Amino acid sequence: MYIGIDLGGTNIAVGLVDKKGKIIQKASTPTLRHRHWSEIIRDMVILTHKVTAAADKNLADIKVVGIGIPGNIDNENGIVVRAANLNMVNVPIAEEFRKYIDIPVNLENDANAAAYGEYFMQDPHRDNFLMVTLGTGVGGGIVIKGKIFRGFNGAGGEIGHHVIHEGGEKCACGRLGCYEAYASVTALINQTKKKMALCSDSLMHQWAQQNGAINGFTAFDCARQGDTAAIEVRDKYITYVSEGIVNLINIFQPETVVIGGGISFEGETLLAPIREFVKKHEFNKQEPRTQIEVAKLFNDAGIVGAAMSAKKQKFL
Amino acid sequence: MYIGIDLGGTNIAVGLVDKKGKIIQKASTPTLRHRHWSEIIRDMVILTHKVTAAADKNLADIKVVGIGIPGNIDNENGIVVRAANLNMVNVPIAEEFRKYIDIPVNLENDANAAAYGEYFMQDPHRDNFLMVTLGTGVGGGIVIKGKIFRGFNGAGGEIGHHVIHEGGEKCACGRLGCYEAYASVTALINQTKKKMALCSDSLMHQWAQQNGAINGFTAFDCARQGDTAAIEVRDKYITYVSEGIVNLINIFQPETVVIGGGISFEGETLLAPIREFVKKHEFNKQEPRTQIEVAKLFNDAGIVGAAMSAKKQKFL
Repeated sequence: MYIGIDLGGTNIAVGLVDKKGKIIQKASTPTLRHRHWSEIIRDMVILTHKVTAAADKNLADIKVVGIGIPGNIDNENGIVVRAANLNMVNVPIAEEFRKYIDIPVNLENDANAAAYGEYFMQDPHRDNFLMVTLGTGVGGGIVIKGKIFRGFNGAGGEIGHHVIHEGGEKCACGRLGCYEAYASVTALINQTKKKMALCSDSLMHQWAQQNGAINGFTAFDCARQGDTAAIEVRDKYITYVSEGIVNLINIFQPETVVIGGGISFEGETLLAPIREFVKKHEFNKQEPRTQIEVAKLFNDAGIVGAAMSAKKQKFL
Repeated sequence: MYIGIDLGGTNIAVGLVDKKGKIIQKASTPTLRHRHWSEIIRDMVILTHKVTAAADKNLADIKVVGIGIPGNIDNENGIVVRAANLNMVNVPIAEEFRKYIDIPVNLENDANAAAYGEYFMQDPHRDNFLMVTLGTGVGGGIVIKGKIFRGFNGAGGEIGHHVIHEGGEKCACGRLGCYEAYASVTALINQTKKKMALCSDSLMHQWAQQNGAINGFTAFDCARQGDTAAIEVRDKYITYVSEGIVNLINIFQPETVVIGGGISFEGETLLAPIREFVKKHEFNKQEPRTQIEVAKLFNDAGIVGAAMSAKKQKFL
């Protein structure tokens, strides 16, 4: 058995995972990210005991603990180099965890872990695999020949931070025109708001009132009801998402691209136009070509990926 | 000993290469690309005999033949799937070559081979390595943990075909705004011509008359002489090149990026502003960071890379 821990800015989620990637038990607790890191690790330990006991297992049954963390990792030494949202700088997480439970600990960047989880649960496994997560930002992970690709310094895979519109929208990273500034849900919400300001008769105003806020589904929902402004927002957003996906396909030629994040719940509404755009615009026009799918594990991807990548302990 | 063959649209270049990547002998002949592929292969065979004899060696001394080809390769079966400039579709190059000389043959895409050559000659070897070639187009190759990265179908690494300006300049691939449409020498020449049309008093007009044509050095040369219009063209071009390099660094975090192609003869004139731009704009702000250099092998990279990647026969 394996423990997979998804350490997020909001929650700590811990799962007991079998060798096939199935979650046997899981439990979570708020991260309370402003407290000292040693307290966060103690909660990880408590949850590890909890899920193990709930499954009638012992700590001796656990081979390795994998922890997915939103930041830069020194995998070799089990150190979080920097995790801005958690106020962690050079934190020896592995060492601290093992003071309580002496089992090997493997750290992984959270986006890489989630990508590995989605990769691992594909049947059959795919040779090269790319995950694009459309969330508050645009994250991603790359699996090449079954190994997580991390770059020479562990900071690779920042697919959200490639400029698709030079001199364009300001990105949180400081550059102008990053993919994230066009294809994240944050960007979609901005695009929705801008259009609403121009179209006072759009159904989106009504929708926002009924739902209490504008979110990533505002344009998609109203487009389904035929609202012209909403259709324009949705279609333009999907074009932005697609441009970045074609870029990544031209560079990586992965066997599969998986799209994750809340917006992936839109399923075929999102996938069908992306597939059409990619087919038309990608550089390679010969079979075999990349398949595009939506994520399957959603919130469990981090737990499964942290556990299964720790099991393999393989990265490029 | 190894044979490296660089099959281009203009010339066939064949080299006898030692295990350290040093070219012992080389010879070339025009490709005459409109003739039948069997004649092209026969010339490769003749040149292989020629360089081997010139070095007082026998065919028995040659362990493997590597051929770099501008197209899609089926490496496993030794077939050129498609090489548009050579009118080759599903050509069994390896089999045909071995009718004359029965030595293992390894095919590689020419850009990948050149990148591998530059990688191989780095001292010490770098963990992750990326080459960007600024030529008629923008090509490139990626070496990860010493292996050429090719994508699941062999068509990966098309770094020139990622959009950096959505809806922008038309690219030869059909998309709008590709890196190639801004950072290739072809693009630089277009940028130079546009500026010259607007600035009739620019020194670039005089330069073009003296040199018989506008080329990739027009703006760089005139900028060195203080011509304002030329400085603007040069600096904007370097910004385009840099944007793409930051994109690729954010995605790959290679230990080294090497810039090749004729424009790389500009050396520090090109490198210094690129390094400054990258330092300012790249996502990762912590050491260690990517080093940026110019290519060292120039025209020999294809021969050396074809030979040395065939020696290793390793790819991802």
